[in-house]
Amino acid sequence: MSTETNAVVESNHIITIKVSNSFNALSRIAGLFSGRGFNIDSISIGDSEIPELASCTITTHGDTRIVEQITRQLDKLVDVEEVNDLTSVPHVSRELALIKVSAPAEVRSEIMQIANIFRSNIVDISPVTLTIELTGNRNKIDACISMLRPFGLKEVSRTGMIAMLREYQGEV
Amino acid sequence: MSTETNAVVESNHIITIKVSNSFNALSRIAGLFSGRGFNIDSISIGDSEIPELASCTITTHGDTRIVEQITRQLDKLVDVEEVNDLTSVPHVSRELALIKVSAPAEVRSEIMQIANIFRSNIVDISPVTLTIELTGNRNKIDACISMLRPFGLKEVSRTGMIAMLREYQGEV
Repeated sequence: MSTETNAVVESNHIITIKVSNSFNALSRIAGLFSGRGFNIDSISIGDSEIPELASCTITTHGDTRIVEQITRQLDKLVDVEEVNDLTSVPHVSRELALIKVSAPAEVRSEIMQIANIFRSNIVDISPVTLTIELTGNRNKIDACISMLRPFGLKEVSRTGMIAMLREYQGEV
Repeated sequence: MSTETNAVVESNHIITIKVSNSFNALSRIAGLFSGRGFNIDSISIGDSEIPELASCTITTHGDTRIVEQITRQLDKLVDVEEVNDLTSVPHVSRELALIKVSAPAEVRSEIMQIANIFRSNIVDISPVTLTIELTGNRNKIDACISMLRPFGLKEVSRTGMIAMLREYQGEV
């Protein structure tokens, strides 16, 4: 590959991997990234449409050419069936968060308003806390968390992002 | 520890880990499980309430005593700040799935009915597919997928489960 410039192009990447249910693969996948000094921003592994394959989504950021190298190496791992980089194609991406926020009675309705605006669900309550379930893209979840942070975040757990090729090809 | 029986108690486990953002830790966490022949059913790593810590949720199944050993060893890993096994305490657990299903016009309304019953959202459409976003516990997602499977699953991506201690202590 001839390149006219050596400029490093940094960007975010969403890589989806179909992997056999052997979770030995996880160590090797993680090793491919950490071996090149790449931080994985999030990782999510769950069932796929094929019973014996798991679906793994990794988000990372950094030099695009190195991410391409990693992608090619992932493809060669023995347990890996398929690798796709969705970064530059139209895709749907979603994340899920559980957010437990300090919520004594006097601020409860204010927090519930915020929860409603983000179309989230309240899934647990105690005299001093509310736990909110929120689904959306990363920006939406970031925004909701920053609205709730001043009340006191007790605990936040976010799944890694999952993503899928968008089929709709028209203008939105 | 004296045990009166050597019977193996098999059960599902939900382990939450707070880990420093060094994803070198991921290889070691995965290695602890695979080294003992334990399969991780799902894993999810994303941001936590503390900027420099990631929240990691692992679900696994097997001999309870070995899971307890693994949990203690996780706690000793250098990047691990906190480990909790939520299995036997009241907790909220949620998972997110994107489901792309074959949906030509003649079955579209039937699929949309199913999507409504599960309170899922349609996030993408094409002349021959629908993509559905669904949040819930594992059983709900399993049920929705088995309702959609006969139409033809094009792609399924599930985040691992995330879970949080339930604060509400009364009877439900």
